[in-house]
Amino acid sequence: MRIAILAHEKFPDRAKTALGVLRYADHDIVAVLDRDRAGHRVGDFVPDVQDAPIVAEMASLEPDAVDALLIGIAPIGGGFDESWREDVRTALENGCDVISGLHSFLANDEEFARLAAENDCEIRDVRKPPADLTVSQGVASEVDAEVILTVGTDCSVGKMTTTMELARDARAAGHDAAVIPTGQTGIMIEGWGNPIDRVVSDFTAGAVEEMILEKGNEHDYLFVEGQGSIVHPAYSPVTLGILHGSMADTLVLCHEAGREAIHGYESFSLPSVPTYVDLYESVAEPVAESRVVAGAINTAGLEDDEDAREAVAAYADALGAPATDVIRFGTDELLEAVL
Amino acid sequence: MRIAILAHEKFPDRAKTALGVLRYADHDIVAVLDRDRAGHRVGDFVPDVQDAPIVAEMASLEPDAVDALLIGIAPIGGGFDESWREDVRTALENGCDVISGLHSFLANDEEFARLAAENDCEIRDVRKPPADLTVSQGVASEVDAEVILTVGTDCSVGKMTTTMELARDARAAGHDAAVIPTGQTGIMIEGWGNPIDRVVSDFTAGAVEEMILEKGNEHDYLFVEGQGSIVHPAYSPVTLGILHGSMADTLVLCHEAGREAIHGYESFSLPSVPTYVDLYESVAEPVAESRVVAGAINTAGLEDDEDAREAVAAYADALGAPATDVIRFGTDELLEAVL
Repeated sequence: MRIAILAHEKFPDRAKTALGVLRYADHDIVAVLDRDRAGHRVGDFVPDVQDAPIVAEMASLEPDAVDALLIGIAPIGGGFDESWREDVRTALENGCDVISGLHSFLANDEEFARLAAENDCEIRDVRKPPADLTVSQGVASEVDAEVILTVGTDCSVGKMTTTMELARDARAAGHDAAVIPTGQTGIMIEGWGNPIDRVVSDFTAGAVEEMILEKGNEHDYLFVEGQGSIVHPAYSPVTLGILHGSMADTLVLCHEAGREAIHGYESFSLPSVPTYVDLYESVAEPVAESRVVAGAINTAGLEDDEDAREAVAAYADALGAPATDVIRFGTDELLEAVL
Repeated sequence: MRIAILAHEKFPDRAKTALGVLRYADHDIVAVLDRDRAGHRVGDFVPDVQDAPIVAEMASLEPDAVDALLIGIAPIGGGFDESWREDVRTALENGCDVISGLHSFLANDEEFARLAAENDCEIRDVRKPPADLTVSQGVASEVDAEVILTVGTDCSVGKMTTTMELARDARAAGHDAAVIPTGQTGIMIEGWGNPIDRVVSDFTAGAVEEMILEKGNEHDYLFVEGQGSIVHPAYSPVTLGILHGSMADTLVLCHEAGREAIHGYESFSLPSVPTYVDLYESVAEPVAESRVVAGAINTAGLEDDEDAREAVAAYADALGAPATDVIRFGTDELLEAVL
């Protein structure tokens, strides 16, 4: 699929979804839309992902050069920004599909719905859960595949990235591995999945289990994208639903170097690394024997490689298990621990 | 409000909602509808709740004697049973409101919606969450009230009953106490609340926090109705959302005597009582210092009072805290521990 990614005024640092798609998706990225950086290229800012031109608007692209426009950023609150309307309108008028992970569904917008119908194209709101979800049966452990789940000390510490890196490198090493996407970026990259944070709370575990059952006998390894943290004041139910619903064999604990309090909830300190290990394992235990066998630490905030190595070593020590920064130092040590 | 309760073929033993409303709600119960027991009275089967005649159908009652028909049972799956249609139709034709906690919303039924509009009455689907919920801010602990949450070793072990008994007896003892209803029966009894199991998983904690903030400065004690269990393969996210969202000061651990495996998921054994105490306290800890200070055990399955006393003593011993069966032996010991 030939994709344009909308990332106005936020590329690259505040465009997590755009970056994830550029880095991991199996799409041909025709352009990134960012009116602040038009004329540059992706490679000017981010060296290690698919390169593409940055343009100011959808109208700058040939009408038949793009199959889908993908919304690659999310404003606080997850709503639609009216300054993007002209680009979405142009895309639909050109017969492009539109893919969005916003909380507010674009298919509910009257103009967009009308344009999509008129031009025979599709609006895919990936954050809209399927209608046929139900409660977990507690049987995810019956699949043949080994299930590896990323869990975290907080939100935005690298769970999606770690999942994607491990799955890609496992495949490159000849293993039959698949990703189980649970959030908007993962779903956009993989082209399927359940947006677990939007599922009815009673069906949280069931929506994960359904995916494990669907893929679990087709692959040797399933890498499940985790969400939130078991002690997050707001998002912990999503985390626990994924933990119990996946009945993971193996957990990889993700953390950001230097993070000491819950992001956006700074009055809550992060507990110690061993406390996280104990919490994840003990709350999983009556449902599945999930064990933390490795750690992934995001050291992007540390400029010096030596500092990064020290942070990795300290983290591995606290964890009592192998750890690394998967972007900075690769995945070899983690794959050895989880495969 | 004058209420008729629909409980066809299930009164009293399989009509948990009907019994909860009869026992705790501040309504005048005009009749229970159960076609299998018509001609009897509630008091013939359940001695310690509000008495009322049992009739075969809504048409047996005077059209102007009832303000609302309440659906007091739930079939497996939570759908509407077509054998109830005639009663709901009669109620709406008489101008009665209809109150339902079913998963399938009666307001979406074309005939019922039309009849409600024609007869100027309301269909209240209490399991439909409000549209304006959002994520938790992590501030429930800032309210003045002491927050007491019932948690459980499993579903259906007495959390709703314990909450209602404690709140009622606290009020009777002169305390200013309110209930925070989180499930259909609690909502029907109290006439307000959020059905936490139907909330979007990201908003689970937020929907509880919203209720705590609404009531927390108006009362000295809030008794929060818990749901599920922290180790339930399907419902644990609901449990954890209530634990973190309420930021409870005090927990009362509810259990059923003799229960050894998770109901409906019998391949999962219940962990030990001290394990539950440790799990609830340690997963709460980074968000709020919630402590298990008492236990409630349902001994209804034990005929002999002496056996019940032994079960209570063994439970208190395992818990390391005061415990009782609140229906059989009253709430005195628990109130002393929680107030």
